[in-house]
Amino acid sequence: MSLTFTRGSVIAVAMGLALSGTAQSQTAPYAAQQAAAGQLRDKALKGSIAFELVESLTTEVGARPAGSAAAHRASDWAVARFKALGYDKVTVETFPVPNWQRGIETAEVTVPYPQKLFITALGGSVATPPLGLSAQVVLFKRFDDMLAQPEGSLNGKIAIVTERIVRAQDGGGYGAGYRIRGLGAAEAAKRGAVGYMLRSLGTDSHRVPHTGSMTYDPAGTKIPAAALSNPDADLLEHMTDRAVPVTVKMIVTPTFGPDLEARTVVGEITGREKPEEIVVIGGHLDSWDLATGAIDDGAGVAITMATGKQILDRAERPRRTVRVVLWGAEEIFKAGAAFAKAHASEVDRHIIGSESDFGGGKVLKLALPAGLTDRAFAEALGRAVTPAGVLMERTPALGGGEDLMEINAMGMPVASLRQDGMDYFDWHHSPDDTLDKIKATDLDQAVAAWSAFTLMVADSAVEFRAPKTAAK
Amino acid sequence: MSLTFTRGSVIAVAMGLALSGTAQSQTAPYAAQQAAAGQLRDKALKGSIAFELVESLTTEVGARPAGSAAAHRASDWAVARFKALGYDKVTVETFPVPNWQRGIETAEVTVPYPQKLFITALGGSVATPPLGLSAQVVLFKRFDDMLAQPEGSLNGKIAIVTERIVRAQDGGGYGAGYRIRGLGAAEAAKRGAVGYMLRSLGTDSHRVPHTGSMTYDPAGTKIPAAALSNPDADLLEHMTDRAVPVTVKMIVTPTFGPDLEARTVVGEITGREKPEEIVVIGGHLDSWDLATGAIDDGAGVAITMATGKQILDRAERPRRTVRVVLWGAEEIFKAGAAFAKAHASEVDRHIIGSESDFGGGKVLKLALPAGLTDRAFAEALGRAVTPAGVLMERTPALGGGEDLMEINAMGMPVASLRQDGMDYFDWHHSPDDTLDKIKATDLDQAVAAWSAFTLMVADSAVEFRAPKTAAK
Repeated sequence: MSLTFTRGSVIAVAMGLALSGTAQSQTAPYAAQQAAAGQLRDKALKGSIAFELVESLTTEVGARPAGSAAAHRASDWAVARFKALGYDKVTVETFPVPNWQRGIETAEVTVPYPQKLFITALGGSVATPPLGLSAQVVLFKRFDDMLAQPEGSLNGKIAIVTERIVRAQDGGGYGAGYRIRGLGAAEAAKRGAVGYMLRSLGTDSHRVPHTGSMTYDPAGTKIPAAALSNPDADLLEHMTDRAVPVTVKMIVTPTFGPDLEARTVVGEITGREKPEEIVVIGGHLDSWDLATGAIDDGAGVAITMATGKQILDRAERPRRTVRVVLWGAEEIFKAGAAFAKAHASEVDRHIIGSESDFGGGKVLKLALPAGLTDRAFAEALGRAVTPAGVLMERTPALGGGEDLMEINAMGMPVASLRQDGMDYFDWHHSPDDTLDKIKATDLDQAVAAWSAFTLMVADSAVEFRAPKTAAK
Repeated sequence: MSLTFTRGSVIAVAMGLALSGTAQSQTAPYAAQQAAAGQLRDKALKGSIAFELVESLTTEVGARPAGSAAAHRASDWAVARFKALGYDKVTVETFPVPNWQRGIETAEVTVPYPQKLFITALGGSVATPPLGLSAQVVLFKRFDDMLAQPEGSLNGKIAIVTERIVRAQDGGGYGAGYRIRGLGAAEAAKRGAVGYMLRSLGTDSHRVPHTGSMTYDPAGTKIPAAALSNPDADLLEHMTDRAVPVTVKMIVTPTFGPDLEARTVVGEITGREKPEEIVVIGGHLDSWDLATGAIDDGAGVAITMATGKQILDRAERPRRTVRVVLWGAEEIFKAGAAFAKAHASEVDRHIIGSESDFGGGKVLKLALPAGLTDRAFAEALGRAVTPAGVLMERTPALGGGEDLMEINAMGMPVASLRQDGMDYFDWHHSPDDTLDKIKATDLDQAVAAWSAFTLMVADSAVEFRAPKTAAK
């Protein structure tokens, strides 16, 4: 999961999809679909293949940055798995991605208290000189404090921002803090800084820095940028609180090369009545390079592949086609545009989409598109998922995931199955994103929620696009 | 804290120091001492200087392996602090220690699933060839499974043991698992292995391996030895569960040099009536090289220095002398013998000793020496500490800390103030041993317990040695 909270931060007008508390009657219009969804839900709650899938991907492939040899092993893995699971059609969509390779990354305080620091370069950062960059630091406890500084005020300095992100179940703290990573180096360079470091966008207290993408001002100076582990950010605060000059030496040596080929893998379950109508679910196959990518996003890959398997195991295919899409370059924001471009001619036939990209925790809430007007369907879907512990969100979905942003902008409605992310940013984008952070029973619950949702939308004729109104 | 549980594992015969439940009467023989101890306790609970001390040591010095330049900065820091706090006498005791320097440490699975592993060399390990050691691994989920293998069965292999230690409030899991680290390389080499790795002796699930000392069989082959982080041990289990050959490449390049000089710093509070009678408290000033040494043992240094300060702040000195000893080489088991040797002529005048070396958690229990026969004193001491949340242990102390082992063996009685170590082995000996793991209020509680204990034993004439009985 990367940048959903900021890139998708358009505030939609709530459509007021308040769900009434009316008791389920035998004449409910979607009773049969609800019952079928309930069967899949309960089957998943008894155990799904999701944990086995994420165990396999993290063990046999591990870290798989977009376009890398490992990413190609991951796409081979996905193709083989889709076929073995009995998906009706498996395709691979390729597209170019930038080639940024991490190098050495070390840092230390040299004056006045020599100590080692744990850092990691941000994705896209330029390198320091090979023997490092030594400079006095200027530390800001709030990002806004740095933004308040005039041009030239950081000349020759390494700027450090140690603002903490807020722990929140919905991950909102990451969205609020994102600019510190994404824009910090550009803003520091504007003020004359020669290097930039931030406290990791992580809620943990371990010596594991969290990487992630950042962007430079194309017209500005590009300065090396790295994340400090939380304890190291604390240490620098303690040192600078003493009001003595602190000098840090940082070495990061990433390299850039010719574009690589990324691969998005699609497993299709072809609809029995309306095969041309497409429901998209999925996760992203690429990961950062520091860990095995269990929660980001092996979990989403596993949840949605297992959801497809649940649907394949039924006696008949759903009315509409279900595509499980494993995007090949989410972390660097390239897969969504490539996907939208590849499917531009069939956007109108994409009924609804949703990406699972928030770890392996339980699904707590389901938000539906603003365009849905069939209240009875929403109520039946609510009754299908609530026994698994999922409540219906009272406001419409704002985004369906990073990789669906562009096709959503082209008109495909999106839903959001919101997971418990209370611990997600303890591990996200850090070496700690490993299999032990996932509970099989939580994954099974997520498969239950995704199965009920996917079957009900695929095995119906419900529309999620807002009805077209005549221009006034 | 290092090896207390194994080196001190002599099972003492319980003396049956059962504390009666009799109500406190106004004629209690130690009522005045108990009241004075209670005043120090309550003062500490309102706030002590302990957190400020550990913040200072970890910020201004940080990692301080025995004999290093940083350890010398730490001893300078301790001398200056003791003087500034008004201790009556400050001395430095020097002694030689081995010189082992960590080098590069990397590892990776090369076949069949290329993945990086997070390792750290064990203290005292020999190096691999500079370009690394590549070999097929043989993984044992229990150490005893490796011990059951015949000689020659591991020829040319890297032996890996992934047994987990048990999380326990008293740290007993570390004691039970210690041999896996201490003796594993020697046992693997006996069976023909060319390298050895173990799951870190840590209860966490982070990508931070835990180092620590190990010993070779002097007559055996010395093979390189390293600890894997817990998630990496899991990963290797998952790979080897597939019953395919797994090859690992490890590089560790530690070096050995001429002995270094370690320094133990002693701050004395000279007794007003019996200055020749000595009560020893303290912690160890050295730390491992991977972190700032906050819990191991900046906390113990801070707790006992602050305890001394509490006693110094009283209107008069206690009857006996109190020495706060900051040992200079606990992690490599050298300070205790040097201390016993330096004080061999005055062992009989060492009334009692205790070392604080189990982190920054609350003191939960106080165990007194088996030789104490003055039941009224034990009861009064119990009543002095219990309001701080400290219970009296019903069995005698088995050890007073790693650095007191030798002088204890020479006759000095020891007490044990047992802390809550439920989380201690999440961080111990790893890069995660940093200041954020310590709560100031917990340190203050420990200072309260140590202050009540120290004042009561120093401001009394109570004996802790078992009375001598005539030979039969």
